[in-house]
Amino acid sequence: MTLSPTERTRHRRLREQGVSSRAALFEVLRDGFVCHVGVVVDGTPMVVPTVYGFDEENLYFHGSVASRSLTRSSEVCVTVTHVDGLVLSRSVFEHGVNYRSAMIYGRPRVLEDEAKLAGLKVLTEHCAPGQWGYARLPNRKELAATTLLALSLEEASVKVRTGPPEDSGEGDDLLEDGSPRWAGILPLSVVTQRLQPDPVLPDGVAAPPHLAALQGD
Amino acid sequence: MTLSPTERTRHRRLREQGVSSRAALFEVLRDGFVCHVGVVVDGTPMVVPTVYGFDEENLYFHGSVASRSLTRSSEVCVTVTHVDGLVLSRSVFEHGVNYRSAMIYGRPRVLEDEAKLAGLKVLTEHCAPGQWGYARLPNRKELAATTLLALSLEEASVKVRTGPPEDSGEGDDLLEDGSPRWAGILPLSVVTQRLQPDPVLPDGVAAPPHLAALQGD
Repeated sequence: MTLSPTERTRHRRLREQGVSSRAALFEVLRDGFVCHVGVVVDGTPMVVPTVYGFDEENLYFHGSVASRSLTRSSEVCVTVTHVDGLVLSRSVFEHGVNYRSAMIYGRPRVLEDEAKLAGLKVLTEHCAPGQWGYARLPNRKELAATTLLALSLEEASVKVRTGPPEDSGEGDDLLEDGSPRWAGILPLSVVTQRLQPDPVLPDGVAAPPHLAALQGD
Repeated sequence: MTLSPTERTRHRRLREQGVSSRAALFEVLRDGFVCHVGVVVDGTPMVVPTVYGFDEENLYFHGSVASRSLTRSSEVCVTVTHVDGLVLSRSVFEHGVNYRSAMIYGRPRVLEDEAKLAGLKVLTEHCAPGQWGYARLPNRKELAATTLLALSLEEASVKVRTGPPEDSGEGDDLLEDGSPRWAGILPLSVVTQRLQPDPVLPDGVAAPPHLAALQGD
């Protein structure tokens, strides 16, 4: 997140926000299933949202958009971002976002055969746990028509901002009428709602437990 | 969203999903405040999340990350994505996401002086309506330390997927035991929670109405 408008602050904050542990990376990846894939096409950038899954070594995502433009030696940058809150500081300058973001750099590999099937399972089970054992699995034709990419998690960085505003005591605590200026966080989160059955389903078909468990109110 | 694993399906779907109206673009931009900015740095892509605001002509975002690497003639791709639901189809192959996404291409301009201040106001009021009149405004030093970019909305595309799964009747409606296979949508949305006051605020300082109006339960 571009939070810091000055070079000095930016560098200071990036240090504070930079998280180098693998655990932090996996936590960010676990909490989402949509990433933004950046590729270079004829010298210009292109940023495409897509679903992902991951294991200890790799991120898996579909290559249908990327593969058109991507030569196999091309670098990508994949970014996963969670927006946890708006930082409503005393000054406009200190406004920002509480967020967690992972950026992964590298050259994705195109998976084939068994590796492709295994990667698809990881991706599917990450997005909708239990569906690999419930939905109809890909047949040979579908597998052949699927381009699945694996990107090593080796080169990755995680950035995080948490906590309240930090500009108290810098002269902006009071409004012009002398009363205290409110500051704080507006928390944000992603929630699931009730499952919506396909209208063409026969009446009374219940969602299987693994899907019912995903839904909210 | 990379939803379609076959070339044929992809092209068909992109046609279906492509939305060319300006109204659709503004609707996607209105519903979010975090975008992913793609830039090319030394030939490789970099995708950075940042907040944005917009008016009829431009998208506004901070240039602190981009400006380091961006020459003023560099192209960017800015993508805004809303994830509205998981499409739980009968076959794994047809799984996907209900989403709305806008991609904006162009060469951002660095704003100065009055235009910079006006752009900051647009950005702030988009992210936190009312804060421009409540928080302390940027002083000259802060303004000088802020890099604000404007990207024309001229070259933009919007893609949308809505509605239920579409693979009924293709042979996957029944499980192996002959009972109907459930299919449908898991809706997702972003919600706000209660405001969290800065712990250093004096007791009893109420959030102003424009912020109280933003919070959820």
